[in-house]
This record gives sequence, structure tokens and C-alpha cells, in this order.
Amino acid sequence: MMTDPALIDELKTLVEPGKVLTDADSLNTYGKDWTKQFAPAPSAIVFPKSIEQVQSIVRWANERAIALVPSGGRTGLSAAAVAANGEVVVSFDYMNQILEFNGMDRTAVCQPGVVTAQLQQFAEDKGLYYPVDFASAGSSQIGGNIGTNAGGIKVIRYGMTRNWVAGLKVVTGKGDLLELNKDLIKNATGYDLRQLFIGAEGTLGFVVEATMRLERQPTNLTALVLGTPDFDSIMPVLHAFQDKLDLTAFEFFSDKALVKVLGRGDVPAPFETDCPFYALLEFEATTEERAEQALATFEHCVEQGWVLDGVMSQSEQQLQNLWKLREYISETISHWTPYKNDISVTIAKVPAFLKEIDAIVGEHYPDFEIVWFGHIGDGNLHLNILKPDGMEKDEFFGKCATVNKWVFETVQKYNGSISAEHGVGMTKRDYLEYSRSEAEIAYMKAIKAAFDPNGIMNPGKIFSLKPEA
Amino acid sequence: MMTDPALIDELKTLVEPGKVLTDADSLNTYGKDWTKQFAPAPSAIVFPKSIEQVQSIVRWANERAIALVPSGGRTGLSAAAVAANGEVVVSFDYMNQILEFNGMDRTAVCQPGVVTAQLQQFAEDKGLYYPVDFASAGSSQIGGNIGTNAGGIKVIRYGMTRNWVAGLKVVTGKGDLLELNKDLIKNATGYDLRQLFIGAEGTLGFVVEATMRLERQPTNLTALVLGTPDFDSIMPVLHAFQDKLDLTAFEFFSDKALVKVLGRGDVPAPFETDCPFYALLEFEATTEERAEQALATFEHCVEQGWVLDGVMSQSEQQLQNLWKLREYISETISHWTPYKNDISVTIAKVPAFLKEIDAIVGEHYPDFEIVWFGHIGDGNLHLNILKPDGMEKDEFFGKCATVNKWVFETVQKYNGSISAEHGVGMTKRDYLEYSRSEAEIAYMKAIKAAFDPNGIMNPGKIFSLKPEA
Repeated sequence: MMTDPALIDELKTLVEPGKVLTDADSLNTYGKDWTKQFAPAPSAIVFPKSIEQVQSIVRWANERAIALVPSGGRTGLSAAAVAANGEVVVSFDYMNQILEFNGMDRTAVCQPGVVTAQLQQFAEDKGLYYPVDFASAGSSQIGGNIGTNAGGIKVIRYGMTRNWVAGLKVVTGKGDLLELNKDLIKNATGYDLRQLFIGAEGTLGFVVEATMRLERQPTNLTALVLGTPDFDSIMPVLHAFQDKLDLTAFEFFSDKALVKVLGRGDVPAPFETDCPFYALLEFEATTEERAEQALATFEHCVEQGWVLDGVMSQSEQQLQNLWKLREYISETISHWTPYKNDISVTIAKVPAFLKEIDAIVGEHYPDFEIVWFGHIGDGNLHLNILKPDGMEKDEFFGKCATVNKWVFETVQKYNGSISAEHGVGMTKRDYLEYSRSEAEIAYMKAIKAAFDPNGIMNPGKIFSLKPEA
Repeated sequence: MMTDPALIDELKTLVEPGKVLTDADSLNTYGKDWTKQFAPAPSAIVFPKSIEQVQSIVRWANERAIALVPSGGRTGLSAAAVAANGEVVVSFDYMNQILEFNGMDRTAVCQPGVVTAQLQQFAEDKGLYYPVDFASAGSSQIGGNIGTNAGGIKVIRYGMTRNWVAGLKVVTGKGDLLELNKDLIKNATGYDLRQLFIGAEGTLGFVVEATMRLERQPTNLTALVLGTPDFDSIMPVLHAFQDKLDLTAFEFFSDKALVKVLGRGDVPAPFETDCPFYALLEFEATTEERAEQALATFEHCVEQGWVLDGVMSQSEQQLQNLWKLREYISETISHWTPYKNDISVTIAKVPAFLKEIDAIVGEHYPDFEIVWFGHIGDGNLHLNILKPDGMEKDEFFGKCATVNKWVFETVQKYNGSISAEHGVGMTKRDYLEYSRSEAEIAYMKAIKAAFDPNGIMNPGKIFSLKPEA
């Protein structure tokens, strides 16, 4: 796309010396995220250090018809931050400061390159809490979290990233700097444009500053792991606990997932009884009474036959160990080259949906091992299919392409989402119509055209084609 | 605008018999909301009973270039639902059913004409809770709540209406039916168009169905009313209590407001000490320990000199009585023909902002009595100025027009909102640029043009001019 060295020289004048890289290593590193399907091929990586520099880059890109790709922690799972077509990657690695803290409003003003764990630590140092948390928190950046509306393991209590964005500064595809919502709790002055930029995957503009809300720290977090006789029993267990407690998490995983994690040898089994499914739930045991309520509900679930065995953490160490049963799954099964899909339906539909996927895959590919886990309290399922030993990768992924179609057709039938929390990017753009109607997609493209008339902002992400200018 | 009786006859063919009204009483009733500035002058009132009928009306209005005004409970305070220019009013009074309940997802599918209190009662009957609450809950409708992103007295804990909308069906200005977000908790498939319609005041389309989230019921709600020696002391009190408890409300009012309410004779004084300002806060006293924590914090605030006196409710009756001190203010002071304004700043800026307004008004109009109250935990202040006895209404409102300008200039200086929760409608459209930049307004108009290219949806609301088609 951009081979002219004169253009690179122009770009260099817009930022500080040394802040444009074109060496092969940098292009390869900054041109990709955690997905592997697309070969990185950017023209250059640029590192702005101020909002003004971002604006200059966007204005220059408009004049020169250069495509820009935003780059945060590059932990995305939908190739939304992959530059595979000669784009210029705009990395926010040097805009990584927490600029301001406001204790009365409980907010922190962040540059987009602030790492999630950095904000979590900052909050803790202030006696507060940033509750959005997920496996990649150690490297994902706030700007990227906002671009994908990141979710994770505490959504049932705290919601998605969207809930924690008090205000946003963005540079639109036209180069305008907008200051959206001004960190207010109540602001009824027309369309809340802030909401459009959350989850837009950088296709409307760049987030250049974000005021994030913080929360009081949770007290005495306590986890239970419960084994159930079948998947259906997980639902009344969720219902029973939600009636009594404000849950901070409600996760599930299958015995197949547990066996793999226990096979590592560094995590103790939760209890002796083998069960086909497990629920992990967490709550604040603020008082003795609260903990007793949890135990009473547990006993009630056992009496009802919904739970076969269970354990409740009695210390921070036990809490951590129970969480490892869930958190280690993804990494552990990665050795089996899994096909992965991140989908959601409403909570009530989860059991029927899961059974239907199991049946379709089992009928056609009986040798495929399906590992389910996910955030069941949000209706968010992570479907993982392990490559059978001895099957070639190509054959496996060929078969998985068929599975993909079945999964999305079933998602559509159940009125669910083809991407619960990973985004659309390039990996799911060709399937968007399974979740969004033709009319919706047309309105989305019209909005894109209003903010980015020249189609320079992360083109080819979310939508297959550039919107008409 | 629409004087042709043939058009009325066309309109009648789109709905059930008797569901178009043109008598003077109906035009007057359905043509206005709680604001008084604009004389109602609609051409007709139409009452659709189905989504299909709404679509027919919108398509017809596009063909005939007829302006439509949505009408809910008509309790708005910004004239967003006023038809002053021959528009056809679309009332949702006959689309007022709760269609579906889902206990596992804790959602209720509502038609737009469901009254807020009806949903609150429905939730209670199911052992759940709909937490958005405000003075007009007995007549405001869900569709209108969504159109204005209604807030109210529990925002500090539960957020605005926005937080409770799981899914929306809307008919856009082009007549398309969109099913937005499908009631999912996690859905990362492009722009969240649902968010655009929340707070759009009917300028992009009509909400024709909404899936609302419900919550577990609060336990043993308990209120404290605390008297403070000055306004500034309210802030550390908020801070101290928020550190220890999840507050469900944090309101404030001045002695001037209290005196007026006590003057009614039907509400007992909270305690004997006279104080210039009062805070009302509420929390769930789920356990004995929690109530003791509240008392200890109260004592700490007294020791620090932030609180002069206070009382904590010990029964449901006492809780109700304490709330009356706050809830009766608006109705009580209405006898003084007050100038009202609903504004917000970030919480930390509240004291300086309030003092600056007091100073400006006091300097120019020393005979004006200013009554402050509001949702201070959200930075939302209700400014009320009472008409001095003996001053003519015209003179008073003439002077208040000047006050308006000072208030909005001060709001702009403090980076606040000219409308915290009442919306823009017609009453604040000419002041929009005090809160939103020229570029933001241009993007809003472009979005409006995408959803409503012929400008038939509630024209003249939010924006002064019709967007270019």
C-alpha cells in the first residue's frame, strides 16, 4: 500500500525523532495480535506521544489516503489490530501514563497505552479497585479494552469496560478531537457518542484519553467450586445463589477441561467426586452471616440434587487455587491446537444451545473432543475443540471451518452473538450477518462514513468492504 | 403543517377504528408535557397497537413529509414530547403490556407504553426490583424513560435507565425495524446502536419494545439524614460513607428547602438542630454489623465537625418520613413559581460550582431566594429560584433568562452538563453548544440524517434546525 519512502519521511516529521520504525522485526511485532491467521505486513509503525501528534497523523493519512491500524497490547483474538495490507500502525506504547486521579469522583484519567494491570495496581494503591479483569490484563491496554469493550471474569457483577468509561477523548477519522461526556455521571445532552467509540475496534477514530471509574475494593472474596450431575443443573444453582448473594463471578467448565488442568500437576483437585460439570462462583463474604448463607444455599442445592460435591475457600491461598482450575484452562488446552469460538446467548437458552452444538459436532465428527468453559452468568460460552492426535492440522482446521458455519447458524437460531467479547475484527467480519441484520449493518456503515469518510481507520475490520465515501 | 383532512383519513386507515383523535381536548392533552412554555398544536393523535402499525405510520409520514412526535407519559421537563407545530403525535398508550418475563435472565419484555410504576410492581411481584425511580414514576412510560435516559434518586447505586436496557426494538425514521442487542449481556459485534437510541429523545426513531433488566430486591433499606455546618462538609461525608457502604442514594437539600417542606405541616422534622445543609443517604442494612458501621461513620463525621446532628431510620415508616423531606421539595416549592434548572458537574467540582452560581445570582438579584437540592452523589444539582412575593411573573422570568445565561456559562466553565437528566428537547436546544462542541453537534446531525433522512422524527428537538437531508 505505502511503498514510497518519501511518505515515510513525511510521517517522521509528525512525531519525535526515532518514533517511526520500519525494520522487519518491528513490522512483524507490531503488525499482529494474538491471532495467527493473517501475516503481518505493515508499512511502518508510528509512536505518537501526544494528542496533537495523533491528530497530525490522522490528517496526514487523510491527505495521503493511508490506512491506519491502532495498536495497543496486541492481545486481541479477532485480528482487529492486525496490519496485513501495508497500513501504518499507530502504537500507543508511549502514551502510557495515568495523568490524573480524582478521589471524590473515584476516577483516573488514562492515556490509551496504560496497561490494564497498571490501572488495577494504581487503583489498589489508592485503596480502590478497577474491576475489569481477564487473562491478558498484564499486557492489554486501556485503549484496546475500550475499542473491544473488553469483558472478562467479573462481568456478572461489574459489567463490561463500557460501564467504567466516564469520559473519552477521541480523534475521529476526520481528525477532529472530541471530548465525550466530560466524566459526568448524568449528562442528557443528545446522543452519547462515547458509546459509539466503545467497541468500535478503532474503525471510527482513535481513543487518545479515557477517564476510567474506580470502585471500592471487594471484601473477603470467597469462592465455591461445585460439581453438578449434568449441565442443566448449573442453571438452578446460578438462580439459587443469585437470589441470596451478589455474585462477583459465576464460571463453569466441563470435566474434560478439569482433567487437562489437573494433568499439569501443579493445581490440587477441588474434591474427590468426579462430576461432568463444575461451577465456580465467587462472592464477598463481608460478614460471617453472608458466608453462612452461602453454605446454606450450597446445602440446599445438594438436597435438590443439583450439586454432587463442593468446596468453599477458607483462605486467600485456597481462593487462588480454586480460580486456577478455571484460569489455567485456556493455556493448558493450547497444546492441543484447539479450534476456539467465543459466543453468547441469553442465560436461559444456554443449556439447549450447548446441547445442540454438542449434538451437531458429535454426529459429524465423533472423534472431536469438545471442551466447554466460560462465563455462564453472562451467557458467554467459550467453545473449544481439540485436534485429535494424529490428525493433520490442515484437515482439522478444514473440518472446523464447517463447524464454524454450524455454530453460527445455531447462534442465529438462538438469537445470540457470534462474538461475545473478542470482537469482530477480520476473523468474524464475514459472519457478521449471523448476528446483525442487513439494515443494522447499513446503519453502521453510514455511521462509519460520518466519522471516517475516507475509510482510513482500520479498514477491513468489522466490515468486509470500505464504506462508500 | 397538516391541515388536509384527506391526510387524516389516510392516517385512519393505518390503525384500528377510533385510534386517531383530532378533537380539541385530545390535541391539547397529548400535545404537551409538563413544561408550560409552548402551546400544544398537533394535527392529530394516533394510537398504534402494534409494531407493524408504527412502521406503517412512519412510512406514511415519510411519503407525506409529516412530522411525528412520540408521546409517552408526558411528564418530560424539556418539551421533548411537545407538538407545537402541527405534528402528528404518536401515543403509545395502547402498547402498554409486559409481554414476557424471564426469571433466569431477570428480564421483562415491555411495550413502550408500560408505566414505570407498573414495571416496578411487576418486578416486585416476581420477587425482583426495577431500580430506576423518580417523582413521575406513576405516569412516565418506559419508552419515554429510554428516550430521555431517565435517572432519578437511585443512580449512585444503580445507574441511569441506560444500564437496564438489555435489548431494544426500534422503528427508525426510515421505517426499518431494528432488533438491537437481542437482550445479551455480552455482544461484541460492532457498534452498539442500542446506545444511540437511549437518550435520543425520539429524534432517530421510536422505541417499540424494550427488554428491561431487573435486580434482586434491596434488603432493609435504611436512611440517615445529617445536618452539616456548610455545603463543603457534605463532600467528606459522602466520601466517608462511600468508603464503608454501598450507598443506594446520596441526596442533599438546603435549609430553605427544608423550611418549605416542614411548613406543610405533614412531615416531622428530622431533628431539632437547625443546619444550613442536609444530606440524605440510604444503604442496605443487610446485617446488624452494617448498621453499626453506618453509626460509627456518622460519629466519625460528627467528631470531624462535618456533621452537627443526624438521625437514622429504625423502621419502614421512619424511612418513608425521612424520604419525604427530600421528595416533597419539588411539589412544595411549585407554589412559588420557581425558575428551575437541572445541571451537573463532576462531584469534586460541586462545591465551587454551587458557590459561584450563588454569588452571581446574589450579586445581581439579592431579592431572589435560591433553593438547592439534588442528587449530589451523581454531581446532579437542581437549581430553583423562587419568585419574590410581589414581583410580576413576566419581570421574574425576564430576569431568569439572564440567570440562565450565567448558569450555562458557569456550567461550561466547569465542564459540566446543561441538562443532567431532563434532556434537551426544545427548552435547551438553543444552549446545546454550552455542553457539546460544534464538531460533536455536526456528528450528531450526521447520525440523525442516517436514521431519519427526511427529518420527520421529532423535528426541532435537541437541534434547532432540521439536518440536511
